[in-house]
Amino acid sequence: MKKSWMDEIKFDANGLVPAIVEDATTHEVLMMAWMNKEAVERTLKTGKTHFYSRSRKSLWLKGESSGHIQKVKKIAVDCDGDTLLVSVTHVGGACHAGYRTCFYRRLEDPAKKWKVVGRKLFDPKKIYAKK
Amino acid sequence: MKKSWMDEIKFDANGLVPAIVEDATTHEVLMMAWMNKEAVERTLKTGKTHFYSRSRKSLWLKGESSGHIQKVKKIAVDCDGDTLLVSVTHVGGACHAGYRTCFYRRLEDPAKKWKVVGRKLFDPKKIYAKK
Repeated sequence: MKKSWMDEIKFDANGLVPAIVEDATTHEVLMMAWMNKEAVERTLKTGKTHFYSRSRKSLWLKGESSGHIQKVKKIAVDCDGDTLLVSVTHVGGACHAGYRTCFYRRLEDPAKKWKVVGRKLFDPKKIYAKK
Repeated sequence: MKKSWMDEIKFDANGLVPAIVEDATTHEVLMMAWMNKEAVERTLKTGKTHFYSRSRKSLWLKGESSGHIQKVKKIAVDCDGDTLLVSVTHVGGACHAGYRTCFYRRLEDPAKKWKVVGRKLFDPKKIYAKK
């Protein structure tokens, strides 16, 4: 039987594949999260990124709490088939800490410490209100 | 004792952290590979990306075979401390298959197949000559 596009994705022993999310226009890397097969399928079907939470052991829609949905423009796979690169349009902050990107800390060398260099776009306390 | 910058990186159960490599100028994502603590240290010390190969169970310098070294410009860590983003200058192809980026295949929807869209920059047979 001919291999489907899904068969070409190599999920790890836990059934997961890392998915890098970038801004489709600027290519800024926004975040990295994990997808299982169902998350990949839902992402493709809905056009909105879905991931698998290893801590909560459940599927989640990016933006389900914050409203900061990511609309999928492109999905690429790497040479080994074991990492995805998802290009999205994303309004607002992609990071739950309120920053545009989760990679908001940069290593200062030779000081050897992480310095916050990212743009803070929202106050997490206001967005993720206790229910 | 005060936590060092290295202590803030959360390595997984196998002592590894995923490292996304992007072009420092265009932000194009070039590849994703894994680093252990030693790979992070060597990358910082030498200014050239080093990774840990899970299949070969050993450290490797990117470009050790191809000569396509990546010079490190910035290292960022994500909010959870469990993924690195390394910004590099990279001349030539970053992918062992000869492409600029490892993410040279894009999902065509609704055809549902991976289409090669990347630029091929070298012939792997010539670069990785049998020794």
